[in-house]
Amino acid sequence: MPAARIALDAFGGDNCPGVEIEGAVQAARGGVHVVLVGQRDKIEAELRRYPDVGRLPISIHHASQVITMDDKPGKAVRAKPDASMPVCFDLVQRGEADAAMSAGNSGAMLACGLFKYRRIKGVDRPAIVASLPTQGEFVTVLDVGANIDCRPLHFAQFAVLGAVYARFKHGRQSPRLGLLSNGTEEQKGTDLIRSVHHILAEHPTDEFSYCGYVEGDGVLRGEVDVVVTDGFTGNIALKVAEATGRLVGVWLRRAIAADTWSKLGAVFMKRAFAELKSQLNPDTYGAAPLLGVNGLAFICHGGSSPFAIATALRSATRSVHESFVPQVTEAVARHAELFAACRSLDAEAQPATNEKGVTA
Amino acid sequence: MPAARIALDAFGGDNCPGVEIEGAVQAARGGVHVVLVGQRDKIEAELRRYPDVGRLPISIHHASQVITMDDKPGKAVRAKPDASMPVCFDLVQRGEADAAMSAGNSGAMLACGLFKYRRIKGVDRPAIVASLPTQGEFVTVLDVGANIDCRPLHFAQFAVLGAVYARFKHGRQSPRLGLLSNGTEEQKGTDLIRSVHHILAEHPTDEFSYCGYVEGDGVLRGEVDVVVTDGFTGNIALKVAEATGRLVGVWLRRAIAADTWSKLGAVFMKRAFAELKSQLNPDTYGAAPLLGVNGLAFICHGGSSPFAIATALRSATRSVHESFVPQVTEAVARHAELFAACRSLDAEAQPATNEKGVTA
Repeated sequence: MPAARIALDAFGGDNCPGVEIEGAVQAARGGVHVVLVGQRDKIEAELRRYPDVGRLPISIHHASQVITMDDKPGKAVRAKPDASMPVCFDLVQRGEADAAMSAGNSGAMLACGLFKYRRIKGVDRPAIVASLPTQGEFVTVLDVGANIDCRPLHFAQFAVLGAVYARFKHGRQSPRLGLLSNGTEEQKGTDLIRSVHHILAEHPTDEFSYCGYVEGDGVLRGEVDVVVTDGFTGNIALKVAEATGRLVGVWLRRAIAADTWSKLGAVFMKRAFAELKSQLNPDTYGAAPLLGVNGLAFICHGGSSPFAIATALRSATRSVHESFVPQVTEAVARHAELFAACRSLDAEAQPATNEKGVTA
Repeated sequence: MPAARIALDAFGGDNCPGVEIEGAVQAARGGVHVVLVGQRDKIEAELRRYPDVGRLPISIHHASQVITMDDKPGKAVRAKPDASMPVCFDLVQRGEADAAMSAGNSGAMLACGLFKYRRIKGVDRPAIVASLPTQGEFVTVLDVGANIDCRPLHFAQFAVLGAVYARFKHGRQSPRLGLLSNGTEEQKGTDLIRSVHHILAEHPTDEFSYCGYVEGDGVLRGEVDVVVTDGFTGNIALKVAEATGRLVGVWLRRAIAADTWSKLGAVFMKRAFAELKSQLNPDTYGAAPLLGVNGLAFICHGGSSPFAIATALRSATRSVHESFVPQVTEAVARHAELFAACRSLDAEAQPATNEKGVTA
């Protein structure tokens, strides 16, 4: 089997292109084939810092434009056809790469997925998926930002997409799936969440085992394998979890600095603290895939470190080699009945919108 | 000034009445006057465990019924008029106590506030308010659970209520106020959140300084003093933050247990770990007040420790002595124009519902 080639947007993250290029070099040293996409002269200048670059499986594809974090997603992708991000998707479309990756504007990544790859038949709304560590195994959370206002149909599609991902990525054969809510009792949730609850409870599937509502505590104890939520709530929950982890780290450092005996103890605790630091670091969890489109796309944190980029690149090659997208397509096709039931509910409800400016 | 008397629902929390009564004894030893409300014989049996109880400012008010966590809030308060929780509010209404407190069903606390105290003129939706620790000072977050579906008017009222509370409780003279969203850029947020953003930006007030959208990171760095959100999102965010704190504690203990040098180091770090443990413990932050009703009501965690109950009781006396409710009433009256602007927006929008079964 030929090596997977990942098209990496070199001008995506907050510290581009240095971070992307250092990450690419790290991954390439481990055998990952990377196509760096962006302004050739700047990429070449950065690459000169690595004396072994001539022996690494790295190539450059020039793209003259850049999409920024402030750009409106749908508009930017249309107005900047030669931006590094959409060009990554073009390379995949033309068979010159196998997956697209960027640490840039996540709304624009969604727009690229919709415009370039197109949606998988039966999927209305692609979702961005995060893996979070818990007291037990990793939990798959979606949507974490692609779809701000959702209808029951979208939640049901997220459930199927998330179950496929939990099986592929985390080895869950029959994932337990929960719906994020403000309590576990039947009467909790918004009207929308309650209608999703009823649909999932009334349509059992072999794809996942539906467990009802979950709260933050159940999620982080590892009581479910997949958490389904809308992209507004999911994005807020994800960022609150990450920020709380950082806050506890700050408190711990302050508490140590304030006490002489603790300062001494901390010297002995180097190994435990290194372990904790790595668990608290979202960079170790890999990129968030965009699920529900006809191709592989991975979204990295804007503030990703080179290590995070390298981890994401390595992890992406597995999705290429083990044909992840066809697994999604088949799972979606198996749930036409569930989605039809949601559609008849939706017909009575309100129109919904996704990340502003992106409609397809 | 006579001592403040707090009516404490002895049958609210997960481990009632033992925890409530131990907390009441602790607070009473410090001079807080507590009226324990609930089944007299059970309360008396518990109190016998404390030999000094005869010298403490504790009295008992009998109430024959109990509202459980599974009860539907509005229905339960109507169907169980002699339950310990609503009887606390009755005591305040009759002038036999100055504030009501419970670790029970928070929806039922909201219902009691609405039915017994009634709303403050100009407030449509009372809110439950939490104080969260940050890298800087405490941040006031509301609503954290009373109102599941909200309209712009409710967010604007939460802003005013939260600003008054941040001033009273945390000493912020001109609190910086943010709207919880999925990003800080203008185009982020749901349609609803964006319309709230425009209203707050277009109606500056001396009550608070509006800073736009905030994410988890900004909130926990202490970049704002008040965070406004709906009760669904706020409840999820609060529980995710608490659960993440617990998760990090579990990781730290595991990392120490796995390494001999770290186990030794941990012995020296007793003081730093005690400090961290207290910062991670939501019990140290006091109860969540119900704001926007004509009286004082405090909601404790269902799993509160005796220490948490005692802390909440002590903190509640200050709200009595410094006339917190009139401060709220005056602030609400000063913002009639802001609320009128929201009402004209609301007229075009959808109906909204609060915690199911509670309408007033």
